[in-house]
Amino acid sequence: MGYRLAELAELVGGRVEGDPERAVETIRTLEGAGPADLSFLTSPRYRAQAAASRAGALLVGKALADRAGLGRDLLVVDDPGYALALLLARLHPDDPRSRREAGVHPTAILEPGCVVDPTAHVGPYVVIGADSRIGAGAAVHAFVAIGRGCVVGEGAVLHPHAVLYDGTEVGAAAIVHAGVVLGADGFGYATHGGVHHKVPQVGRVVVEAEVEIGANSTVDRATLGDTRIGAGTKVDNLVQVGHNVQVGRHCILCGQAGIAGSARLGDGVVLAGQSGVAGHIELGDRVQVAAKSAALASVEAGKAVAGIPAVEIRKWRRQTALVSRLEEMSRRLRALERKLGESAADSEAGEED
Amino acid sequence: MGYRLAELAELVGGRVEGDPERAVETIRTLEGAGPADLSFLTSPRYRAQAAASRAGALLVGKALADRAGLGRDLLVVDDPGYALALLLARLHPDDPRSRREAGVHPTAILEPGCVVDPTAHVGPYVVIGADSRIGAGAAVHAFVAIGRGCVVGEGAVLHPHAVLYDGTEVGAAAIVHAGVVLGADGFGYATHGGVHHKVPQVGRVVVEAEVEIGANSTVDRATLGDTRIGAGTKVDNLVQVGHNVQVGRHCILCGQAGIAGSARLGDGVVLAGQSGVAGHIELGDRVQVAAKSAALASVEAGKAVAGIPAVEIRKWRRQTALVSRLEEMSRRLRALERKLGESAADSEAGEED
Amino acid sequence: MGYRLAELAELVGGRVEGDPERAVETIRTLEGAGPADLSFLTSPRYRAQAAASRAGALLVGKALADRAGLGRDLLVVDDPGYALALLLARLHPDDPRSRREAGVHPTAILEPGCVVDPTAHVGPYVVIGADSRIGAGAAVHAFVAIGRGCVVGEGAVLHPHAVLYDGTEVGAAAIVHAGVVLGADGFGYATHGGVHHKVPQVGRVVVEAEVEIGANSTVDRATLGDTRIGAGTKVDNLVQVGHNVQVGRHCILCGQAGIAGSARLGDGVVLAGQSGVAGHIELGDRVQVAAKSAALASVEAGKAVAGIPAVEIRKWRRQTALVSRLEEMSRRLRALERKLGESAADSEAGEED
Repeated sequence: MGYRLAELAELVGGRVEGDPERAVETIRTLEGAGPADLSFLTSPRYRAQAAASRAGALLVGKALADRAGLGRDLLVVDDPGYALALLLARLHPDDPRSRREAGVHPTAILEPGCVVDPTAHVGPYVVIGADSRIGAGAAVHAFVAIGRGCVVGEGAVLHPHAVLYDGTEVGAAAIVHAGVVLGADGFGYATHGGVHHKVPQVGRVVVEAEVEIGANSTVDRATLGDTRIGAGTKVDNLVQVGHNVQVGRHCILCGQAGIAGSARLGDGVVLAGQSGVAGHIELGDRVQVAAKSAALASVEAGKAVAGIPAVEIRKWRRQTALVSRLEEMSRRLRALERKLGESAADSEAGEED
Repeated sequence: MGYRLAELAELVGGRVEGDPERAVETIRTLEGAGPADLSFLTSPRYRAQAAASRAGALLVGKALADRAGLGRDLLVVDDPGYALALLLARLHPDDPRSRREAGVHPTAILEPGCVVDPTAHVGPYVVIGADSRIGAGAAVHAFVAIGRGCVVGEGAVLHPHAVLYDGTEVGAAAIVHAGVVLGADGFGYATHGGVHHKVPQVGRVVVEAEVEIGANSTVDRATLGDTRIGAGTKVDNLVQVGHNVQVGRHCILCGQAGIAGSARLGDGVVLAGQSGVAGHIELGDRVQVAAKSAALASVEAGKAVAGIPAVEIRKWRRQTALVSRLEEMSRRLRALERKLGESAADSEAGEED
Repeated sequence: MGYRLAELAELVGGRVEGDPERAVETIRTLEGAGPADLSFLTSPRYRAQAAASRAGALLVGKALADRAGLGRDLLVVDDPGYALALLLARLHPDDPRSRREAGVHPTAILEPGCVVDPTAHVGPYVVIGADSRIGAGAAVHAFVAIGRGCVVGEGAVLHPHAVLYDGTEVGAAAIVHAGVVLGADGFGYATHGGVHHKVPQVGRVVVEAEVEIGANSTVDRATLGDTRIGAGTKVDNLVQVGHNVQVGRHCILCGQAGIAGSARLGDGVVLAGQSGVAGHIELGDRVQVAAKSAALASVEAGKAVAGIPAVEIRKWRRQTALVSRLEEMSRRLRALERKLGESAADSEAGEED
């Protein structure tokens, strides 16, 4: 049983260095793999672990395809990350989560006017509000709460405890993980005489096709109109997307990133972990915001920024390097002052700010 | 059908520039509005979009009430944000979420001793623990889990999947969004011999009247006594409030802000997005902590602070400007050294810290 | 009724200063305590409140055991935090959450092959997938969703709305708070031609014994193999743990901390609030990352780091102090230039970066 390396090479468009007839049963981590397994080396930092692994064969990129050093048969590809995605889908096809039977569980509560496609799965203890529609092949898992007038697209998956407020749209093949809240009221108040008056949030949330949203992330409904996550965008866990935000297509929003209200992100934008985007600004296509950074002003397409407030990343790196040399600069300044007979005491008088 | 501008002006205490008889059907975004709609311009940054909008009329503040430039009838007010709140409430009155019928859904499970006011709504698959009370007109939506001995005030709304641990109190007219967890154990351990022993958390959480808490935010129960969110305070999504924290009245806690244990916030405090407050410190009334900043020491009433650690915001702005000029300062220092024949190499010897 | 101080002293290994026969009924905060209560003073910052408290007796550490100044009977111990934990467990034994009766609620849905120990509690509206096992004395509260092939250890507690994806293991005596999501897909994509292809996440999550995980935190399943939280580690609310991460034993992960994919933490690591750890790096045993800081590179065992990027904390403190003196340094630099007749205007020409 298993797969011949030659056949896997054909699947991923790669080539075998070594024995093309070697059979592997599955794919495992470097630590977990045994002689019957394929493992993978996608970064030079794991080269020593790869050499020490018991794996029978390794998937590697061209740059790391050192068969002598790695001491075993190799499956060599241009893009090992993409090959890994293809191989996992082939070698682990039986993810039980993808095998939910069609039909509505008897404990699910559907308000009048709901339309559930007969090929969709609606699990136990699901509540779906009036006039909502669940598309063909969609899976709505246990305890999902769907409001009124919602749309869940074909093949979309809503994991347990996801919540869709009224009017939310989730596109085809989108994946919404457990605990995600789509369409809660945006954070809008008009402060009048020291009291915060709620601005009604009567817009909605639209999540386009093939978006994935990680566990416990939140996307607020717009004040008016739509908060929108563009097609193919991937959102990690615990990410906050404020009201009226427009996120483009094929963006990557990493864990705990946050986007304040009315910001607009172009296509292919990357927000690294714990980064933030201020309200009402615009990030052009392919902008990258570094981890822990805060974009407080609009950024032109293609730029990578870092820092608080974020500046171009090269500038941020230079600043960071200079800050780490401040002690030395301070010493040098003092040395010059001494040489010139300047009294440091005088100039320090005003520093109590 | 619709509303005459003159009548809306009366509602919001404004005046019409142009035709007071113009009728509008609803209020929409600048992009979404058509000739039968009112839209709004609340910030100069959207002036070009306002001029290009198809909206029949615009709500504007006095400073932006340039009828010639905007080319249409205007509804001019002192405070356009507040007027927008009033108009939305008038023009979008039929939020279906506010029209839940009174009564307890047959699938709700109420432990003995619960008292649910007959005018309250308790939705499907709600669980309420013993001796809890649900006030008049309150709405408890699907999958809400309420522990034992809880109180939900008059007119309060608990959105789907909110969780109240035992003993939690939610005040009148408070709004608790989906996925919020009130009253989980505070993060308290006594470390003894390298092992973290749990300190029992036997206090509770009190959320006062007219507080709103955003989706998936968490407020921990006190070790002893109460963790308290003062009346009228508004909390955004994914905010963390640690045990024993006291938050004053009419505060604003923006998305992903965090408050460590035993901190005390006065009234009218504003925590901007992703900001943090250290444990055991005190922020006076009306303190403002900037986005991404961390207040690590107490701050006097009325101050605005920024940075990590947070300093007065003017000082932070100057520091940030100076950091961005460090490259230039370094060049100037080097130039002086050259002029004085100082060897930079000497002074750099000790910088390997 | 109540407890004599002498008997409490024996319980916690302390001694009484004053009347060993004084009886206390319970333990309360300094503000909440009356003459029949014990309160506690664990930090010098609360000394004034302690002196003003109405408490009949105080638990204090040796350093603060000033009986004259505090004006009442004292229970003096080496480690007041640990003593407080012991006292709370003794004086507040009746946490109703710990008294859930054994048995499976009739509304719980168990797929075939589940094994629930007869001494375990399974609450209302729980769903447990096929072939999962619930250990002796475990408590699974309302609305918990447990996938297929999961294991919940002896005495573990899953609070309402916790979600365990397929294959998740939770160790003995672990506590998982409301809204926690264990085992959602890791954030892994292979970007190919501008499109992000999902890398199947076929590993799982293992939470070892005596771990506590705070409300709404998320731990992602591994791509292959396990994401692991080591025994005795305590995780606060809204913490993100990425796929393939290995967290050691007895670590402390404070609120809103985040760990990116494939990072490895040793034993006894402390991540302060809102801190972050980059992917693929290693933090040695007992490493401490300060609040709001970001460890972007590996850190040796025993080091404390702070800043973005994180450096040794002493270095960070010096840097922070120097940044706050930049204004003064700038003035001094200018003064030297004037003295030397240097034109600042020249050197500023290139600063428009």
